[in-house]
Amino acid sequence: MVIVIQCTDKVGLVATIAGLLQEQELNIVSMREHVDSIQNRFYARVEINKTIDAAILETQLKFVLPPDAEVIVNPNPLKKILLLVTKEYHCLSDILIRNHFNTLGAEVLGVVGNHATLGDICRRFDMPFHFISHEGISKEAFEAELSSEVNKYVPDYIILAKFMRILSPSFVEKYPLQIINIHHSFLPAFIGANPYKQAYERGVKLIGATAHFVTNQLDEGPIIAQQIISVNHSFTTTHMVKAGKEIETAVLAKALQLVFDDKVLVFQNKTVVFE
Amino acid sequence: MVIVIQCTDKVGLVATIAGLLQEQELNIVSMREHVDSIQNRFYARVEINKTIDAAILETQLKFVLPPDAEVIVNPNPLKKILLLVTKEYHCLSDILIRNHFNTLGAEVLGVVGNHATLGDICRRFDMPFHFISHEGISKEAFEAELSSEVNKYVPDYIILAKFMRILSPSFVEKYPLQIINIHHSFLPAFIGANPYKQAYERGVKLIGATAHFVTNQLDEGPIIAQQIISVNHSFTTTHMVKAGKEIETAVLAKALQLVFDDKVLVFQNKTVVFE
Amino acid sequence: MVIVIQCTDKVGLVATIAGLLQEQELNIVSMREHVDSIQNRFYARVEINKTIDAAILETQLKFVLPPDAEVIVNPNPLKKILLLVTKEYHCLSDILIRNHFNTLGAEVLGVVGNHATLGDICRRFDMPFHFISHEGISKEAFEAELSSEVNKYVPDYIILAKFMRILSPSFVEKYPLQIINIHHSFLPAFIGANPYKQAYERGVKLIGATAHFVTNQLDEGPIIAQQIISVNHSFTTTHMVKAGKEIETAVLAKALQLVFDDKVLVFQNKTVVFE
Amino acid sequence: MVIVIQCTDKVGLVATIAGLLQEQELNIVSMREHVDSIQNRFYARVEINKTIDAAILETQLKFVLPPDAEVIVNPNPLKKILLLVTKEYHCLSDILIRNHFNTLGAEVLGVVGNHATLGDICRRFDMPFHFISHEGISKEAFEAELSSEVNKYVPDYIILAKFMRILSPSFVEKYPLQIINIHHSFLPAFIGANPYKQAYERGVKLIGATAHFVTNQLDEGPIIAQQIISVNHSFTTTHMVKAGKEIETAVLAKALQLVFDDKVLVFQNKTVVFE
Repeated sequence: MVIVIQCTDKVGLVATIAGLLQEQELNIVSMREHVDSIQNRFYARVEINKTIDAAILETQLKFVLPPDAEVIVNPNPLKKILLLVTKEYHCLSDILIRNHFNTLGAEVLGVVGNHATLGDICRRFDMPFHFISHEGISKEAFEAELSSEVNKYVPDYIILAKFMRILSPSFVEKYPLQIINIHHSFLPAFIGANPYKQAYERGVKLIGATAHFVTNQLDEGPIIAQQIISVNHSFTTTHMVKAGKEIETAVLAKALQLVFDDKVLVFQNKTVVFE
Repeated sequence: MVIVIQCTDKVGLVATIAGLLQEQELNIVSMREHVDSIQNRFYARVEINKTIDAAILETQLKFVLPPDAEVIVNPNPLKKILLLVTKEYHCLSDILIRNHFNTLGAEVLGVVGNHATLGDICRRFDMPFHFISHEGISKEAFEAELSSEVNKYVPDYIILAKFMRILSPSFVEKYPLQIINIHHSFLPAFIGANPYKQAYERGVKLIGATAHFVTNQLDEGPIIAQQIISVNHSFTTTHMVKAGKEIETAVLAKALQLVFDDKVLVFQNKTVVFE
Repeated sequence: MVIVIQCTDKVGLVATIAGLLQEQELNIVSMREHVDSIQNRFYARVEINKTIDAAILETQLKFVLPPDAEVIVNPNPLKKILLLVTKEYHCLSDILIRNHFNTLGAEVLGVVGNHATLGDICRRFDMPFHFISHEGISKEAFEAELSSEVNKYVPDYIILAKFMRILSPSFVEKYPLQIINIHHSFLPAFIGANPYKQAYERGVKLIGATAHFVTNQLDEGPIIAQQIISVNHSFTTTHMVKAGKEIETAVLAKALQLVFDDKVLVFQNKTVVFE
Repeated sequence: MVIVIQCTDKVGLVATIAGLLQEQELNIVSMREHVDSIQNRFYARVEINKTIDAAILETQLKFVLPPDAEVIVNPNPLKKILLLVTKEYHCLSDILIRNHFNTLGAEVLGVVGNHATLGDICRRFDMPFHFISHEGISKEAFEAELSSEVNKYVPDYIILAKFMRILSPSFVEKYPLQIINIHHSFLPAFIGANPYKQAYERGVKLIGATAHFVTNQLDEGPIIAQQIISVNHSFTTTHMVKAGKEIETAVLAKALQLVFDDKVLVFQNKTVVFE
């Protein structure tokens, strides 16, 4: 069972938390604590060896901790997620496979595509697929349909698994720190469109991918994970796109695993990742 | 200031440690705790925000912790080390440079070589160099001379920075968990002599290096750090040796930094590394 | 179009090959040549900018090259492959996905499993699955059934995508340099069974996977690709197996791409990989 | 002996080069050829097994190749280099060590510093150090002094080993493709000053370093090599600077080795690296 806490730092927080757990004969099998001295902020992740009533423990912890403490006691290891996709299959397929074989660490509730392309692969896994076209309607109307679908499922997280539409601030604000995107560059290099074309033209020797929470600054949300892959002069933009898909798949899978394991804490525009 | 603790696990150890620190108004700025459930063993590393009397705190912690607890409160961030070398310059030079510019995180007391080759580079850094030849004398006599030199310096650690003699059990036993070696292979592959020749003949695509504590099992001591580097068909044994030197230098530097930062705990034949 | 050549080295081989291509107005867009001076062996891979009659060009090249020259002019970029599996889904699923979306660079003809477990995922991709149990019959009889299935398909390569039976010399000899295996360790470390358990017990800081051609020395065939992933004290054997699956999937995918792109030349127990 | 060629592409270039070498009974032990189809440009690097008169061979090759061909026959494997430094020791020391032990693949002629700080380490290696202060004089006057020093030595390459002054266009133009810089970020991310501070504020999970030729676009010259290192929430700007030094040292060493081995060809704003 996992406990995740963040609050303004002060002396004695670890003692307070550990004391409360000791009273209930709960053993801490793994603990990570970090204080950001510049922000004066306390972050902790605690794994205990028993599964007890999460709501009660959460209440108890909030009672003894400072008023601004955010406390999450993981009541259910299986997060529920909704995927938003466009036409590219690689991230979606990887997630569907893991979901199908119960190794994702989360449950995929359904998939929404703004093109019909990926409906077939979803059906092969008996996964609900909803085609919501963005064509011929306003962004507002498109996002209203999206929201309606999201609200049917009430997912813990919305994963943009190569969803190629920019979401409006009003949509993003509805799901704070719940939307995770995979961006096809090593942010902050190559912000915006066609990062592989930019990378080709610059003649870089590494390309990357970045998984991050979506906020209302384009490509500027808190970064969860980044990885790179080597490229060289023999790579055209097309080859870079192909190599990039491998790393996009890998880094999104890694980021999701960290999030599903409650290892990612967010404060302002940064993450603390207790890897 | 750093506190490192290991002992048999039981409920309440974190509470005990954190409680004692809280009483003294000490703030925990970083904490790592790990329980090995198979071994039923508790490991912790705590960073606090003040420098206080280490001996007193160590005594206090031992008083409240189980009798088998090993407690180290870092009284002095600068470890003292002695280097043993043969003829290869790369690891030695890297350490001498860092020592010279005060970025090693330790103080090099001196260098002992079983060849005179590396005396010159030591002198350029005003570093004492002692030439103790192993030729024409028994291993016993050679190691007696070595020990005599070690005992003059009383180092915290003896670093085998490409020291190409196998030390006898009786020598090793005198300095338990104090001798660190860099082995030129990705252990346990290619144990023993000429690992690069073995790697060449096997046609591997990666070669590695391993930094480990020396025990009386050849190349079998607790591993601190390992890294690899890509090789291919164009590498002869000579090229592999050259590429290997880069990775040997890097992995020894990394392992030493971990040890000097009190991030490496050892139990039986394994390490816990709170990286 | 790709030309792959190996033979005993002598002066003028590049001139001979390039001269023949020039006569036919074929432009070399990429060339890799390597001479192994120890073996006195010549290896080359040439990409030309047109698709012409492969059989004729092959004959012409053999006519001008030394008698021992092995010449392959790629007549068909799409290799045909058969997969052998047991119960683990990760490598199989990755290959099926790539095959389904036509990005594998090969065509999967079918899958043979010695357990029925993976039949379902194959059916979801309309992929023929043949269940051939090894239970209750002799190894000879089991392999006769396997061979019979292989011979129906006549694949270019047989991929052991986590096939957990050791094939007999007589089976392996029928398909020289046609069988590719993914081994769940960084060979030659941890040869044989339970490499992750061995890795756990040794306390290594990296684990690896190796894709190699199968010969009659167990885990000793020519290595195509190897990769590693970091592990630490918090990994039990189970966690290592899980992390290992990621790297097994990645390294097999990479090795297959190299083979399908005709970038891997084999001589005796080693590969030349023109990556 | 190494031959490096680039020119506009046409059919038959490899045959022409290889034919000329064959006539002289020269064996090609390694060859890399690449055609950039977008630029219609031919690049080749050929290693031959004998050392012959470079000037004659260069003339012969130019005679048979197109008029725009740039041909370099390596007459002398040991490039001569001059180092420009400011106050940071890490890149300089690494190069001095390799130079001292004759493994740099080049000869360091001298070091110029715009601060006196690094004079001491140079003197320890009997390396000429010239202190040219930029303070109290115009940029023009400063660079005139620099040029005067460069012209005394006539180096093949000028290495900016953490030289923290931006050179003016008129200086850079004097030494086209002869100035190599190590930039402390994964370009094009974090162009300009304080990249580690920018990286810290953005909360990236990887930081990088880039070795590149200097042109008159700041941080925009042809990239030779790039590498990255993982960072996390526990890294302050200071820790990032420290980790960055390791990767700066490594990537500059790698880039220099590639350049000294005549493996880097430059055209317009990109490199072809025959690694």
